[in-house]
Amino acid sequence: MANAPELNPAQRTLLGPGPSNIHPRVMRAMIAPVVGHLDPDFAAVMEEVKQLLRALFQTANDLTFPVSGTGSAGMEAAIANLIEEGDEAVIGVNGVFGGRAADCAERMGARVHRVESPWGRIIEPADIATALKKTKRPKMVLIVHAETSTGIWQPVEEISRLAHEHGAMLVLDTVTSLGCIPVEIDKWRVDVAYSCTQKGISAPPGLAPITFSQAARDAIRARKQKCHSWYFDISMIEQYWGRERVYHHTAPITMTYALYEGLRLVLEEGLPARFERHRLNGAAISAGLAALGLEPVAQEGHRLPQLAVVKTPAGIDEAAVRRELLLKYNLEIAGGLGPFRGQVWRIGTLGESSRRQHVAALLGALESIIASMGVEVRRGAALAAADKVYA
Amino acid sequence: MANAPELNPAQRTLLGPGPSNIHPRVMRAMIAPVVGHLDPDFAAVMEEVKQLLRALFQTANDLTFPVSGTGSAGMEAAIANLIEEGDEAVIGVNGVFGGRAADCAERMGARVHRVESPWGRIIEPADIATALKKTKRPKMVLIVHAETSTGIWQPVEEISRLAHEHGAMLVLDTVTSLGCIPVEIDKWRVDVAYSCTQKGISAPPGLAPITFSQAARDAIRARKQKCHSWYFDISMIEQYWGRERVYHHTAPITMTYALYEGLRLVLEEGLPARFERHRLNGAAISAGLAALGLEPVAQEGHRLPQLAVVKTPAGIDEAAVRRELLLKYNLEIAGGLGPFRGQVWRIGTLGESSRRQHVAALLGALESIIASMGVEVRRGAALAAADKVYA
Repeated sequence: MANAPELNPAQRTLLGPGPSNIHPRVMRAMIAPVVGHLDPDFAAVMEEVKQLLRALFQTANDLTFPVSGTGSAGMEAAIANLIEEGDEAVIGVNGVFGGRAADCAERMGARVHRVESPWGRIIEPADIATALKKTKRPKMVLIVHAETSTGIWQPVEEISRLAHEHGAMLVLDTVTSLGCIPVEIDKWRVDVAYSCTQKGISAPPGLAPITFSQAARDAIRARKQKCHSWYFDISMIEQYWGRERVYHHTAPITMTYALYEGLRLVLEEGLPARFERHRLNGAAISAGLAALGLEPVAQEGHRLPQLAVVKTPAGIDEAAVRRELLLKYNLEIAGGLGPFRGQVWRIGTLGESSRRQHVAALLGALESIIASMGVEVRRGAALAAADKVYA
Repeated sequence: MANAPELNPAQRTLLGPGPSNIHPRVMRAMIAPVVGHLDPDFAAVMEEVKQLLRALFQTANDLTFPVSGTGSAGMEAAIANLIEEGDEAVIGVNGVFGGRAADCAERMGARVHRVESPWGRIIEPADIATALKKTKRPKMVLIVHAETSTGIWQPVEEISRLAHEHGAMLVLDTVTSLGCIPVEIDKWRVDVAYSCTQKGISAPPGLAPITFSQAARDAIRARKQKCHSWYFDISMIEQYWGRERVYHHTAPITMTYALYEGLRLVLEEGLPARFERHRLNGAAISAGLAALGLEPVAQEGHRLPQLAVVKTPAGIDEAAVRRELLLKYNLEIAGGLGPFRGQVWRIGTLGESSRRQHVAALLGALESIIASMGVEVRRGAALAAADKVYA
């Protein structure tokens, strides 16, 4: 057993839906000394992280902190705390992640009203309105802001209005949006939003930033049953992340350092500049992919800049293309999930991965590989199309 | 917001119940490049981590991997997967962590039979037997191997025999034992055991190693209801950590690197040498604490070597002592939990923190501080007592 090999993973450029590339300053933060989780030096970092997350979520919500798990843990924490047995939930399902939230809510005891749209289409506010009318006392409406399986950019405000009109809270999955496109929790009246660290924030995976409105906290305090989850129970965790520092579990110290440094980088760049960078590189890569004849699956007008999901060319082995990108070029892109398996590529330019050099590398490599497999492409057209966007 | 200060935590020696000191090789592992979680290079690390964990847990269990959360997430994963609504569980409660497990099991729908012992005493097998006789079809018995709140080292084998005799599975909390004292999953017929990364393994907190016997897996497959937790559902996670690599969530890549390197260090040292090191340094620090007049709370014959829990001297401000240790000496020890708050100190020598220089530093610093506060101590006696152990 002592001969387990030395750790030596390849140096990839990460252009899938996450993790994204890590900034060297985030790497450096992870070798800061580990202190105890109740150490005053760690308490200071916790306070700063909460502040920085509030700025990124654009919220004044006091209860804003990272859940000690990955993005899906954020989803589970949101749902486990809001839902009691028998509560009604309206959940938009137009991809893997809405479906996952519906499954999670049912496990926690919710009666779920699924509002479906075809993959690649947004959830229509009118359909949410119809579903809400069928409920008696809906507890929450949940939608996914950026569907990682399809590249759909979901509008939020109209659905938020409908939810509140019916007395429901709005839960927003911002796993693939936070740090890439505007997430305006207070303006949009979102009650709970959760995200991850390894996409728009460009830290390694391991934490799930989350924020709760006062209405959500009041609803949690008014629960009649204990939350099914001990690990994610906000009524205890809020005392640990609050100034009381009541021991609940041991926070992942080093990941918190990484998140802190990632957030500092985000805020140093500034949100408008960061969103513009994502818009620009996203537009460039999309123009390049179009020039290669690769068609997006998301409906026009609702495409995420940070995640292009395109149909794979007919007649080629799409997995072989990804393998070649990975092993010959050290470039990672992702395949499709669920019904999109084998049908699409998911190409992300999230956080630190949203840089012009990566756009150029990916378009060049992809052109070379698919050309070598017999796909008819006009050589150089992809990069030229991207250049036009930057011009 | 852009003026959040540069990260600069103090360099502490961690002598509480965890986190423990981190080896420089583990630090270095954390700056290895982050690759995608489905990358072949990460898949290779996953396979190695499983192998190394099996060696540490002393098990052949195929399903042995780290849960993507801290030690308490391991507890929740164990309980959420075994318990269905109405199942009976017998849980030993002689400190915070048994109580936490009982709470968790009730939230997941169990009818819990608490078997209590006073804090500082072991759970008596005879009491488990009595409780089991009151059950109809007990699903599981859960005990804590190393009670972090009291320093009790719980014997396992007799309780395991009783559990299986009644058709129940045995769940063992090894959060504070794994890597410090022998944990023999197969020999003891343990069905599920969970632990953490930041104690005996000396990596940062963030993952929860766990192992499931075939019987536990069969019970999970035979469930009639879905597990309340989506995030911890083993029926999905086993396909992600299995060779199928079916996407469930994104594993915490960097923490997995840290765990990998921590495990390599554990296995390079070898389990017998590691346990002997913990025994020796634990005996030395306990001898020193006794020479300072500090009495252990755990019953004789059942004291953990890696965690001394001692009564604080009468008439002094114990929190002031800890503060002085931390701020003047950069030494961390912990206070008491629950009813032991203000009553005890918890002094750990776990993993990399179990070194003679730290024993010397702590005994010296503690002697100086309590002497300065008017506690009558024979100067030099603590270190001399420790030296005798090493002689």
